[in-house]
Amino acid sequence: MSNTATHPSPHRVVIVGGGFAGLYAAKALGRSKDVTVTLIDKRNFHLFQPLLYQVATGKLSPGDISSPLRSILSASRNTNVLMDEVTDIQPETRQIVLKGSTLEYDSLIVATGVSHHYFGKDEWASVAPGLKTVEDALEMRRRIFLAFEAAEKETDPEKRRAWLTFVVVGGGPTGVELAGALAELAHSILKNEFRSIDTTEAQVLLLEGLDRVLPPYPPELSAEAEASLTQLGVTVQTSTLVTNISDGVVTLKQGDRTEQVQAKTVLWAAGVKASAMGKVLSEKAGAELDRVGRVVVAPDLSLPSNPDIFVIGDLAHYAHQDDKPLPGVAPVAMQQGEYIARLVKQRLKGASLPPFRYSDGGSLAVIGRNAAVANLGKFKLSGFPAWLIWIFVHIYYLIEFDNKLIVMTQWFWSYFTRKGGARLITGEEGMVDGELAPLSVEREKEPVEV
Amino acid sequence: MSNTATHPSPHRVVIVGGGFAGLYAAKALGRSKDVTVTLIDKRNFHLFQPLLYQVATGKLSPGDISSPLRSILSASRNTNVLMDEVTDIQPETRQIVLKGSTLEYDSLIVATGVSHHYFGKDEWASVAPGLKTVEDALEMRRRIFLAFEAAEKETDPEKRRAWLTFVVVGGGPTGVELAGALAELAHSILKNEFRSIDTTEAQVLLLEGLDRVLPPYPPELSAEAEASLTQLGVTVQTSTLVTNISDGVVTLKQGDRTEQVQAKTVLWAAGVKASAMGKVLSEKAGAELDRVGRVVVAPDLSLPSNPDIFVIGDLAHYAHQDDKPLPGVAPVAMQQGEYIARLVKQRLKGASLPPFRYSDGGSLAVIGRNAAVANLGKFKLSGFPAWLIWIFVHIYYLIEFDNKLIVMTQWFWSYFTRKGGARLITGEEGMVDGELAPLSVEREKEPVEV
Repeated sequence: MSNTATHPSPHRVVIVGGGFAGLYAAKALGRSKDVTVTLIDKRNFHLFQPLLYQVATGKLSPGDISSPLRSILSASRNTNVLMDEVTDIQPETRQIVLKGSTLEYDSLIVATGVSHHYFGKDEWASVAPGLKTVEDALEMRRRIFLAFEAAEKETDPEKRRAWLTFVVVGGGPTGVELAGALAELAHSILKNEFRSIDTTEAQVLLLEGLDRVLPPYPPELSAEAEASLTQLGVTVQTSTLVTNISDGVVTLKQGDRTEQVQAKTVLWAAGVKASAMGKVLSEKAGAELDRVGRVVVAPDLSLPSNPDIFVIGDLAHYAHQDDKPLPGVAPVAMQQGEYIARLVKQRLKGASLPPFRYSDGGSLAVIGRNAAVANLGKFKLSGFPAWLIWIFVHIYYLIEFDNKLIVMTQWFWSYFTRKGGARLITGEEGMVDGELAPLSVEREKEPVEV
Repeated sequence: MSNTATHPSPHRVVIVGGGFAGLYAAKALGRSKDVTVTLIDKRNFHLFQPLLYQVATGKLSPGDISSPLRSILSASRNTNVLMDEVTDIQPETRQIVLKGSTLEYDSLIVATGVSHHYFGKDEWASVAPGLKTVEDALEMRRRIFLAFEAAEKETDPEKRRAWLTFVVVGGGPTGVELAGALAELAHSILKNEFRSIDTTEAQVLLLEGLDRVLPPYPPELSAEAEASLTQLGVTVQTSTLVTNISDGVVTLKQGDRTEQVQAKTVLWAAGVKASAMGKVLSEKAGAELDRVGRVVVAPDLSLPSNPDIFVIGDLAHYAHQDDKPLPGVAPVAMQQGEYIARLVKQRLKGASLPPFRYSDGGSLAVIGRNAAVANLGKFKLSGFPAWLIWIFVHIYYLIEFDNKLIVMTQWFWSYFTRKGGARLITGEEGMVDGELAPLSVEREKEPVEV
């Protein structure tokens, strides 16, 4: 349908992307009578990405950390949810082009986020899956649990060890959480379930290019995190670059030393690149992009070249606070979404707002059962207290109450039983004996950005 | 690994298939010191199939109705779980052939079940998915929720109606439950979530070849079920055969009358065919097969041609009780699994057992919120009491306690909120505008077997 009707009286806000940024903008605009909202996403659900690693390691189901966008926004009668994909923007006529239709806007909010990238080595995608979508998480889950099944059947000790070696590339929050959960799987959850292998002999290797894990955190918390990981059974290797991933072999470089690790399972938790909308905004609306393709925004999160287009969330490069761009984390996205909603309402009254300012409530990363690190500004916590805070913060933010209840039940139960309930190997069957395609390329020496 | 070592002292039981039949046999043999058990399944989880339709309609996640086989059997130290596929049997040497290895048995229990079939029209599989596996359920879920999304975007009234028409083929328990859940989705759960369409205008058509729904149940319960379905908004058409499914059009035949229904979503709940192991047993072990490929078994569930091979569950055709073979339902499978375990133990003592006898505790089918039918022999219930029984029976049988707790929470919550929590459209993206491949074949006039 082509919305080329006469300009309707309410201000038309179009939001592209139903992640934290887009959803929080939509929610904050949902009760306004002065605007109509159209939220466009190619998926029909909002995904609580910070818990995606728990899907990858079989603790939660995708449905536990997702909520249908329509359901979240059903009470906002001014809001229309559209499952579609934006293919182009025409700022001169204030239109966006969808698959098979166009849509007019008065204010356009772009919040399409980022995906992982492989520093130019896209071939690694097939051997070292990343963790951005539900499908990514299910692919990781499939590989992880197939590896244990294959090891159980393998009689050659060397091959068996390769099946029981898990390499996590990238020591940011995702990598730390993944490695911790993998170690817990091997050393606790799966311990009594195999007959031929001893799962506690599995090796989990966490690789980080910089000199400590959780680089955005204060050094003392990085040290705490590394100690907790080591105690869980993770081998942490910092200042280490991956130079090659091929046919079950990961090649590492630590200073001048080169090492080869036989590992059948490689999980990618390093590097982000901007979604395709960044490029569209650059070509069509004169947006400036940073090195990874994120859109450089003005202090009010609009495009300097076009005040009716806003970019928020992970896709935005906001450099007007501190000396570096804001991190790509959920709290920044939520606050930006709410800021834009206020700004749009203010503008309708002819007023404006002071520049966006991120209020940092602290950051958290969980390492395993009873272990986490929390950076709350003045307070730096680790161990059990940080873990408790982590649990409560995540439950609090799980958008819909039914999800909160389910996840709480799952966690409560798995805390006491040490079982993981969602360990299904689904998708393509019978890949146990499948070998990974050989690859041999060298990675560019970019710093790892997580 | 080839297990061609000398005969070990414990009796080696090999079970193929981790459904209700195989799993209950394994559980009952799990504490015996006289046997070792190897349970082989191509999946790593047991699936609670009776609730699969709730995954297809977005109420539960696959993880909620699955339990890892290793986890269920981890306490049985005599039991080995193998994720593998049986490709052949060699009864003369008492060996089964797996992918890449062989395994010796003393007693072989085959419980590989059935899949759906299309009465010779296998092309229908791509346009009318069935409901046997997790992947099947996710495919149904994807199609159902994509249909609503496509309808929301469609401006042509006729095409929109086709997106909002759902045809369920087969009026057995699965078809009745699917149709009821679909009507609930359209009339209640999704009611306030769309802006362009009125989901309560969706049409759910339930087709049954025989003269009433739930043919295996007493006629008065069939009538109750039909009344409940009609009240929920389902259009029930009995004595109706599907003669063609092609490009969004289902052709029906009711007596001499032919009708064409424009429907984008067709769900298959009719017809079963035996799994491939039936044919292997027939070729290699002299088993007799019935019309749909199930294995005709002796009164002790063994093959008349080979007393060391047993067939149980849906794959077995057991005709030594009543005038017709036992139905392919979970209670029969569980009881057969437990019977075989007892029989194997008795045989080791040189004793035997009287023929297997199914003790029918009753049958249940749920139609929707607060509505079900229950046939408890003397008691025939419908409505809310039957629904309550249905809830408790299903929770009771959900094998692991963690699943019970989660499912109970989900149901409890969705009962009061009328929300469905797991409505993700996953897998191949952007199929909204995809058309179904045209097909034009006529269905054989076999009676519908559910």
